[in-house]
Amino acid sequence: MEVKGKGEREISRPRGNCIIAQSGGPTTVINQSLCGVIREAQKHREIEEIYGARDGILGLLKGDLIDLRKEKTAAIDNLKTTPGAALGSCRYRLKSWSESKKDLEKIIKICKRYNLRYFFYIGGNDSMDTANKVDEAAKRMNYQLKVIGIPKTIDNDLVLTDHCPGFASAAKYLAVSVMEAGRHLESLYGSESVTILETLGRNTGWLAGSCALAKRLEKDAPHLIYFPEIPFSLDRFIKDVKEVYHKIGGVFVVVSEGLRDEKGNYICAKRGRVSTDAFGHLELEGISGYLKEVIESRFKLKTRTIKPDICQQSAVHFASRVDMEEAYLVGKEAVKLALEGKSGYMITIKRGKGKVYERRISAARLSLVANMEKRVPLRWITKKGNFVTKEFIEYVRPLIQGEVSLPTQNGLPCYPKLEKRKILAKK
Amino acid sequence: MEVKGKGEREISRPRGNCIIAQSGGPTTVINQSLCGVIREAQKHREIEEIYGARDGILGLLKGDLIDLRKEKTAAIDNLKTTPGAALGSCRYRLKSWSESKKDLEKIIKICKRYNLRYFFYIGGNDSMDTANKVDEAAKRMNYQLKVIGIPKTIDNDLVLTDHCPGFASAAKYLAVSVMEAGRHLESLYGSESVTILETLGRNTGWLAGSCALAKRLEKDAPHLIYFPEIPFSLDRFIKDVKEVYHKIGGVFVVVSEGLRDEKGNYICAKRGRVSTDAFGHLELEGISGYLKEVIESRFKLKTRTIKPDICQQSAVHFASRVDMEEAYLVGKEAVKLALEGKSGYMITIKRGKGKVYERRISAARLSLVANMEKRVPLRWITKKGNFVTKEFIEYVRPLIQGEVSLPTQNGLPCYPKLEKRKILAKK
Repeated sequence: MEVKGKGEREISRPRGNCIIAQSGGPTTVINQSLCGVIREAQKHREIEEIYGARDGILGLLKGDLIDLRKEKTAAIDNLKTTPGAALGSCRYRLKSWSESKKDLEKIIKICKRYNLRYFFYIGGNDSMDTANKVDEAAKRMNYQLKVIGIPKTIDNDLVLTDHCPGFASAAKYLAVSVMEAGRHLESLYGSESVTILETLGRNTGWLAGSCALAKRLEKDAPHLIYFPEIPFSLDRFIKDVKEVYHKIGGVFVVVSEGLRDEKGNYICAKRGRVSTDAFGHLELEGISGYLKEVIESRFKLKTRTIKPDICQQSAVHFASRVDMEEAYLVGKEAVKLALEGKSGYMITIKRGKGKVYERRISAARLSLVANMEKRVPLRWITKKGNFVTKEFIEYVRPLIQGEVSLPTQNGLPCYPKLEKRKILAKK
Repeated sequence: MEVKGKGEREISRPRGNCIIAQSGGPTTVINQSLCGVIREAQKHREIEEIYGARDGILGLLKGDLIDLRKEKTAAIDNLKTTPGAALGSCRYRLKSWSESKKDLEKIIKICKRYNLRYFFYIGGNDSMDTANKVDEAAKRMNYQLKVIGIPKTIDNDLVLTDHCPGFASAAKYLAVSVMEAGRHLESLYGSESVTILETLGRNTGWLAGSCALAKRLEKDAPHLIYFPEIPFSLDRFIKDVKEVYHKIGGVFVVVSEGLRDEKGNYICAKRGRVSTDAFGHLELEGISGYLKEVIESRFKLKTRTIKPDICQQSAVHFASRVDMEEAYLVGKEAVKLALEGKSGYMITIKRGKGKVYERRISAARLSLVANMEKRVPLRWITKKGNFVTKEFIEYVRPLIQGEVSLPTQNGLPCYPKLEKRKILAKK
């Protein structure tokens, strides 16, 4: 049932096709959400065809759509434990209605052409902004489209949700890496004294802080953690390293890529290494290399750097089962919410107040989530600004529980790809 | 039975204590070898006490020994899947008899004091040199000591053995990392086009080459691999990257840390970033960062770098079961060889000629192994010098088979430590 014209927005469940897209940097569990949407969509008669847009919103702009009903059920299920965004992703940003009118009109035109009535966008805070703009454009153009955002980011920085799918698996992978590298370093304290591991986290220290999960005993790595939330002082850093070195004989430091000085400027920017990405964000690199140079020149201590980079976004081989389950769940719930007639919302996760971890699914307006950023609460960082408190650990620990068993072939995991059968416009 | 004086070297199995030490950079499976030695030593009456030297040969020099019979059996077994060197390690180098006479005499003195008759040294080519020197010193000083080297190195560069325990687990971890990061990159080709992963491997490209295991389809990562064995030409590199980019739309490059130019100089040394470690080796860093700068300035393509560094030496969570088993086996066999009265040997692994992987344990003289280096055969690198041949893959693949199941606690592995009870000198 296709409905046109004003005043019909009350009809809550339009009959038509659904479109799913993935946006921004993929996470380890991003395809769980995709599978959650597909599986739930298959259950409802209101949803006829299930399409995927290639490379995020770009697929919608270009009409580059694939037919997900044509993929075998097993192929869909196999995606659950495959890294990368199975549909392809992008970092394309829609601006305001006046600035991006052409793009937005094009998107709605494509929606009309393919009778797209349900749009599920899996992404972070920039992508929620995109979803919000599509929702607003549809309303403005009187096109009935149910737009639901599905949270995804390793940065864990979306507001109005307790945490974000994708974060916990990155946290778990980083924690095991610090644990292992820390144990390695410990056995070489005499000759290799300092290790600096650089995590992702441009503006928030959720991932850097999570490395604290690796620590069980006082002497265990990590010894020091630095956060974008706390202005970075080189003098204090040097003092901290010296102190730990004298106490323990070796130092394992974790730094978030986006450390800033007291004026809010990135530490790396000082060295002229900053450029801009497609979302208009500054690009950072080199904080661990910079601090290595500082330590080696001041202390003459051999310093190693570890930079897992996108491995922390893709390490399915050591993902969190809780994270996997939740990513699937938010995908499913997005479909249910759309079929309740809601549009312009992002699915959120609420945590119970009890000691045992409990979650419940809720939703928040896209307009309240878009472009906002949840930082680590300062009360969860120690007074010295170089470690997390036990509240932080208690927050993260339930999220990294459980492992995922992977089918392997010849000693390595099987990570199948979608066939991505293109669909033809029905004009 | 303690035997002194000349002419008694024929007595093949002296009764006395054994000492085990670990040396150089730990591997994921270094403690398997330790456990193999302990478990086998426990079976033989000739071996009375089982001691460990803390921090490699330094423990023997200082008399810093621990009593491994006092550790609980379960604690020993738990070490099998614990990263780092459980006894501690070092990078201490013994020089020739004339230069290191004081050290060597001290070591033999400690051996006498503790009635050490069996010395097992787990390490790479530098450490085999140390073991050889201790063996020679004992003979020179007429002290009956059976010295057996146990191969261990992620670099896979020991000669006279088909491969080295520790290598395969590093290879497997790198391969899964490239597979995952490659899948991630693939879904972002539009906005993030080039990724460079830097592996360890100062002089040999065994680890860099092993990343090729990640590739199943033509388009899969890695696309280009560069080896220390092949003189690196920046012009050819740029041409290679361009070619792959135009063909595939994205480029995943693997580089070994120790790339050299045609004169044999390290590429990084050109940038004044080279220092020296305790073994007298040049220290390298920054090849991936250097190449990133080259690509970004020449092509304006966003380039990421990944530097797993010591994670590739310690990632027990994704170790090779074959590697684990072999590391244990070489430890066991070292004890058996010593009890056959042999000294001055390193255990080696021979591979069967058949299609199905078969191994057999053998031994080679320490003097022939010490300080030698096995490089990747040039016939196993493609003509263009930027990938491996299928013979390389066929060599590595059997070694990375099988996974290891780890006991976990709160979502992370349990990596117990030894209690390290010191023993007192019995004068």
